[in-house]
Amino acid sequence: MKYCSNCATEIEIKVPEGDNLPRHTCPSCDSVFYVNPKIVAGCLPIYEDKVLLCKRAIEPRLGYWTVPAGFMELGESTEEAALRETKEEANASVELQSLYTLTSITHVNQVQFIYLAKLPKPKFSTSSESLEVRLFSEEEIPWDELAFPTVKNALCFYFEDRKKGAYPLHEIILTGNK
Amino acid sequence: MKYCSNCATEIEIKVPEGDNLPRHTCPSCDSVFYVNPKIVAGCLPIYEDKVLLCKRAIEPRLGYWTVPAGFMELGESTEEAALRETKEEANASVELQSLYTLTSITHVNQVQFIYLAKLPKPKFSTSSESLEVRLFSEEEIPWDELAFPTVKNALCFYFEDRKKGAYPLHEIILTGNK
Repeated sequence: MKYCSNCATEIEIKVPEGDNLPRHTCPSCDSVFYVNPKIVAGCLPIYEDKVLLCKRAIEPRLGYWTVPAGFMELGESTEEAALRETKEEANASVELQSLYTLTSITHVNQVQFIYLAKLPKPKFSTSSESLEVRLFSEEEIPWDELAFPTVKNALCFYFEDRKKGAYPLHEIILTGNK
Repeated sequence: MKYCSNCATEIEIKVPEGDNLPRHTCPSCDSVFYVNPKIVAGCLPIYEDKVLLCKRAIEPRLGYWTVPAGFMELGESTEEAALRETKEEANASVELQSLYTLTSITHVNQVQFIYLAKLPKPKFSTSSESLEVRLFSEEEIPWDELAFPTVKNALCFYFEDRKKGAYPLHEIILTGNK
């Protein structure tokens, strides 16, 4: 950020009065521009004994497998964001069952919500965001070709929890060191 | 947003290629400016049979009672944000017990995380953000002077759950109509 988006004056970085962190501020119109973590919402769709994954058609991690998920938009709930992303990336309509993994990813300033979801019918297809969409049994999971640590976590939790028949919320903090 | 924060050109609102929603875009340097919901994190601190509330010293809802909570900063986990806000607003050091209410507030584009927390000692004080900080028993709660619906929800859930001795996560969606 170089210029004030309200009046086009050059931005200064300083601690505003009453605040305790440096912010992008405008010396002319006194605007303060806050930058905060973003929410990513998605789901782990389950059909019978299989999970639905999407091969990413876009960077980052193009060609790697992920769960359908993406940035939450204004005006949505986290549930609506997860359903929309699943529709957009996999052309799949799911029923959300419960919030399953909740991950603060501090080095990229994201908080990720992954819901456990039921895919009622094996109906899905590729999209502009997914090169391939398919169902995987536990034995078929491409562990070395998963896009993100959060995807691996959700799958590991799921296959473990399935043995016990209970799917509690898993809360995780990922930092750049892990 | 009127001007591009990278090059100070006047902003256009249009749907970028490959996107499906109108965004603030720059016709000169092609920057796209996304605006997403923000996370508010805080806690409901419990000391013996009482809860800690803060009387707001700042707008909105100046003079009304709230739980310590505020906007999550870059580089934090949601847990760290809740602890920091409790320290800043009530000068209190708490131990987070579990995520307790998770609320999408769609008309203000916020997702609020309230943790249930233990206040080990009755040690707290006012701050630049709180005119008064005090412990309330259930009978003393100022129900008509609570700052936000999310505060009322957290307190209602807590006093109900306390009777049962179990404190599950409560997920809520608030829209402008409620």
